[in-house]
Amino acid sequence: MQLETINNYVYGQWLPGSDKFAQLLDASSGEEIGQTSTHGLSFKDALEYARKTGNPGLRKLTFHERGRCLKSLALHLLKHKEKYYQLSYCTGATKVDGWVDIEGGIGNLFVYASKGRREMPDLPYYVDGKTEGLSKGGSFVGQHICTPLAGCAVHINAFNFPVWGMLEKLAVNFLAGVPAIVKPATLTSYLTQAVVKDIIDSKILPEGALQILCGSAGDLLGHVQSQDIVTFTGSASTGQMLKAHPQIMKESVRFNMEADSLNCSILGPDATPDTAEFKIFIKEVAKEMTIKAGQKCTAIRRAIVPENLMEDVSQALKERLGKTTIGDPRRDDVRMGPLASKDQLHEVREKIEELSKYAELVMDGRADFEVIGASRDNGFFMAPTLLVCERPFENDIVHSVEAFGPVSTLFPYKTTQEAIDLANKGGGSLVGSLVSADKNFSKDIVLGTANHHGRLLILNERCAKESTGHGSPMPQLVHGGPGRAGGGEEMGGIRGIHHYMQRTALQGDPTTLSYICERHLPGADRPESERHPFTKHFEEIKIGETLTTHKRTVTETDIVNFANLSWDHFYAHTDETSLEGTLFESRVAHGYFVISMAAGLFVHAAKGPVLANYGLDELRFTKPVYVGATLGVKLTAKEKIDQEDREDETPRGIVKWQVDVTDDEGENVALATILTLVAKKGE
Amino acid sequence: MQLETINNYVYGQWLPGSDKFAQLLDASSGEEIGQTSTHGLSFKDALEYARKTGNPGLRKLTFHERGRCLKSLALHLLKHKEKYYQLSYCTGATKVDGWVDIEGGIGNLFVYASKGRREMPDLPYYVDGKTEGLSKGGSFVGQHICTPLAGCAVHINAFNFPVWGMLEKLAVNFLAGVPAIVKPATLTSYLTQAVVKDIIDSKILPEGALQILCGSAGDLLGHVQSQDIVTFTGSASTGQMLKAHPQIMKESVRFNMEADSLNCSILGPDATPDTAEFKIFIKEVAKEMTIKAGQKCTAIRRAIVPENLMEDVSQALKERLGKTTIGDPRRDDVRMGPLASKDQLHEVREKIEELSKYAELVMDGRADFEVIGASRDNGFFMAPTLLVCERPFENDIVHSVEAFGPVSTLFPYKTTQEAIDLANKGGGSLVGSLVSADKNFSKDIVLGTANHHGRLLILNERCAKESTGHGSPMPQLVHGGPGRAGGGEEMGGIRGIHHYMQRTALQGDPTTLSYICERHLPGADRPESERHPFTKHFEEIKIGETLTTHKRTVTETDIVNFANLSWDHFYAHTDETSLEGTLFESRVAHGYFVISMAAGLFVHAAKGPVLANYGLDELRFTKPVYVGATLGVKLTAKEKIDQEDREDETPRGIVKWQVDVTDDEGENVALATILTLVAKKGE
Repeated sequence: MQLETINNYVYGQWLPGSDKFAQLLDASSGEEIGQTSTHGLSFKDALEYARKTGNPGLRKLTFHERGRCLKSLALHLLKHKEKYYQLSYCTGATKVDGWVDIEGGIGNLFVYASKGRREMPDLPYYVDGKTEGLSKGGSFVGQHICTPLAGCAVHINAFNFPVWGMLEKLAVNFLAGVPAIVKPATLTSYLTQAVVKDIIDSKILPEGALQILCGSAGDLLGHVQSQDIVTFTGSASTGQMLKAHPQIMKESVRFNMEADSLNCSILGPDATPDTAEFKIFIKEVAKEMTIKAGQKCTAIRRAIVPENLMEDVSQALKERLGKTTIGDPRRDDVRMGPLASKDQLHEVREKIEELSKYAELVMDGRADFEVIGASRDNGFFMAPTLLVCERPFENDIVHSVEAFGPVSTLFPYKTTQEAIDLANKGGGSLVGSLVSADKNFSKDIVLGTANHHGRLLILNERCAKESTGHGSPMPQLVHGGPGRAGGGEEMGGIRGIHHYMQRTALQGDPTTLSYICERHLPGADRPESERHPFTKHFEEIKIGETLTTHKRTVTETDIVNFANLSWDHFYAHTDETSLEGTLFESRVAHGYFVISMAAGLFVHAAKGPVLANYGLDELRFTKPVYVGATLGVKLTAKEKIDQEDREDETPRGIVKWQVDVTDDEGENVALATILTLVAKKGE
Repeated sequence: MQLETINNYVYGQWLPGSDKFAQLLDASSGEEIGQTSTHGLSFKDALEYARKTGNPGLRKLTFHERGRCLKSLALHLLKHKEKYYQLSYCTGATKVDGWVDIEGGIGNLFVYASKGRREMPDLPYYVDGKTEGLSKGGSFVGQHICTPLAGCAVHINAFNFPVWGMLEKLAVNFLAGVPAIVKPATLTSYLTQAVVKDIIDSKILPEGALQILCGSAGDLLGHVQSQDIVTFTGSASTGQMLKAHPQIMKESVRFNMEADSLNCSILGPDATPDTAEFKIFIKEVAKEMTIKAGQKCTAIRRAIVPENLMEDVSQALKERLGKTTIGDPRRDDVRMGPLASKDQLHEVREKIEELSKYAELVMDGRADFEVIGASRDNGFFMAPTLLVCERPFENDIVHSVEAFGPVSTLFPYKTTQEAIDLANKGGGSLVGSLVSADKNFSKDIVLGTANHHGRLLILNERCAKESTGHGSPMPQLVHGGPGRAGGGEEMGGIRGIHHYMQRTALQGDPTTLSYICERHLPGADRPESERHPFTKHFEEIKIGETLTTHKRTVTETDIVNFANLSWDHFYAHTDETSLEGTLFESRVAHGYFVISMAAGLFVHAAKGPVLANYGLDELRFTKPVYVGATLGVKLTAKEKIDQEDREDETPRGIVKWQVDVTDDEGENVALATILTLVAKKGE
């Protein structure tokens, strides 16, 4: 495959660099397949374009609209995936490696598309957490909101996942309403660029939402400002350097770092060679060593094994790894492709040399091995390498030097505490795993190591079949880790968008804050609706409008009838002689009767826009209701959640209503939020 | 008042420095009142002591236990408050200033004491967010937990709030389970130290939980590690320098910065001189200028005023500020004390000089003024200073140079967008406020400026009386701001404890994760209880244990009876002819009947440990129930929340139960979480 010069996309144009081109090589053949450069481009202008053109276009969209963009984008890219696979082979990735990168990346867009529409409001910003009372009289309250930053996300990415590495971040910043400039590692930038080209061509995103620089980052960071966000994925040393950039310090720019770490996997003492867990462990370690030729920031670098099982594990791993076929990643019979570059190969070999001073090489991937369908001399191949470190507490090199290839080291442990200490010697990791069917062992390991890890996988026979594996970050879960892993946090479902938004505490009177938040907050005005709110369509309902109902006196007959109808004969409702020492003075009305009769008071019986009672949140019974109490209800429109129109369904939205049931002493006896499906009027 | 040498508390000992003593002066008289130094202490040992002695003692406590410690601490310090007021006067603080610092600080302990017990579990760690499905079959799920970091919090604090500045941070790190070393500004460290002494003497906290360094921070940051946390409050320049410390970079140490910023207050165009809002604005600006002699990182430095109201505002402010009595803060007739030091006074005067090049000095606090009960020559006094900048868009100096004293500048604006632009010219602020009764103006300003602010106060007549004011961070709300304000975030209620904890994504089978999280997660095993779980006391109930009930066939009679008893005659339950175009095939059972009859199936009628039905969360109706459907229930113990024993109450806890109502086709028709109060068995 012969490629052209790879262009950059900046300030609305596809531009080549003007000088200092980097050569791009096929990892299996070493042949040149293209060149790229960012020389001569104005990074300052690119940032300004993102802020001035991209940001306003994105920030005004609602989460639902952004979610729909992400879904369209995902569907669009899926159509082009074959092209990406072809380019992916050039990076040294097998079909399976490419699947993780390409379809895994697109999968992230789908997940965020869905979360944006299901978990977020149909607004450009969101209300965060509950209202906080700040005054006795209730006229002064606090409420947090999160709004998109007015800048640009700058993503400096690693070479190993050219597609996923970009999309896992874009999904999040776009959902947050913030544009991005992507700076992929030059080495594999042609694949990232191909995806960006399809995104730009699709015109699904507002112009300026995405730019790409396929080459040196030059003075890019020298122009970032306080509303920008920089993310970095790559080696710890580079990341630390960038994070301390004077401009980043001066402007307090948010910097999220995700660095390679010395991730471990721990085998439980219960997982003897006859168990399913033993086999799961061997398979997982071997898989993490060979997938992507071990060039994963989440790969298992350290396998921590009960002392008495070391020999068994070592043997089983050698046997399994020995079967790894190495060669041209385009071939179906090849399990592991080359490393990404000659430099990578050189560096991994050096690191193995260093590690071998403190650990025994039981399988040396630098030795002779067969290469299928490619030349060992021209491509950047190596075989799996296994080391055994018998005295793991004697030095820290084995826990801090990382060979970023198909390389792992085995460590023995005697006690659970030793296993915990060894895991934590990584100094902070993206991920750790443990393989055990013993729930007590699993709990001890988790609680002993969680503060050193961003993710922990607990594997056993119950979940192994459906497990997504040690090495795979999931969009629903946080990705990142403390210390050595960079101290960052990405994704984690909706948590991730907070990195691109500012949380602001609003203080004021509840009515004004309700208006700003487009949500009825406790204590806000509740103006009486001019007609029953259940006769109104979704669009007609105003936040805060209220129905104050007629009243009803609770009788003994009601309680008896409700007990008989529900079959709930709990003594407090039915046995007058049983109440000594209880919370109740006499037979109390069922809580479910109180909420049911409240519905009887507030429901509008005639057919109208309300399609169904959908559910109920946070119902609390605040005061016992006895015979003779007279109850009334206030029903207030609290929040409206638009729903996408679907064929064969009446267009609709969800309306949440605040329900307060009050007795004749004016005291609250129950409160709840009820959910209704309400039809739209339409045009 | 003559003080001794101020000792440090490190590695379990009260120790003086050995050399290089700093002199501590009374701000009103300039007289020496003590000296302090950290020379000769081992900062490395102090950190190690916190990690090895303080951390294990705190992390093993549950949130409830930590909350109780905070409450005891708050009550203990309140007893000693008179002593703190006496020392506070020496710093230049009036009684009111001291109240904010001392009782405000203690108030933070109370708030976190309460939140820890009411909002957090009775465990040393907490479960964060919902379970995430990660597989089709449900055997593999994700769940986040947060565990305390294993290190030490290092708090580098500012001179202006010696008590609050420490306690607002300690409340949070202690609740998180992490110890602290406090490094107050040397200038006012004697007051901080007096509080620390009482905390240590009280023995309420585990040993090693708190240390204090009253002097230079020396090489303290050179010894921090990846599980430590550094917080900084003070000037932006110092903060940026510390944040870039090589050791902080190398270990990816969390660094939270809260810096002085050019906070603004905006007057709405509706707030003409005849309005309540005008008076509120004048009062607020004057208060923020003079309280603590304007030495507050949240003070109003920029007042943004409608062009046509500039003259009115300027006149009214001058008049009000002119009445400020200045002098010995111990006197009741003094409204404003001195600045904290000669250096501060010098610096503020210099900054006024700089600002006056771009803004007109309409009130110059460097000129002659009366000082009551103290000597103007010996103390560090100045008077309020007001500037007017007629052309606010012409230079950035007026938006970036901060005079950290009783100094503010007025700026005119023409349009709402201009007001927003001026506010945001601060480059990121801790707080902004707006004073207006116009809800549309308020909403525009909030949505236009929120991303530049950590907090926004919306003031009007509705809330002004109960407002806590522009300058007061509240423990329930986040404190911090982007850009110039340092990019950090503190407090914010429970949000704050996350700064001291590691969030970890757990992946595995739901049964094992339930065991680790001490909470029943969706898909986990639900072993049948050996007897009805409502016959069990709080301690006896095991997470996951389940009651599978008998069943009940829903009849037309049930629906009719329920409609009559509840008075809920909604057409879908009662009118067979009305169902065309609805979600329903025939008259549907009321949702509240379904949940009520579920209770009839799962409730144990006889008197026993279940004291009451407390409420219900997340009830969802998932499938319509028609006549003839036969329903059964699974009731599973989901979560147990211990409650503190109170006199005159049966000792109890809250148990949350998962309720699944299923029909004869095995499909779910309703699910919910119900809450019961369950008595403890006791000893």
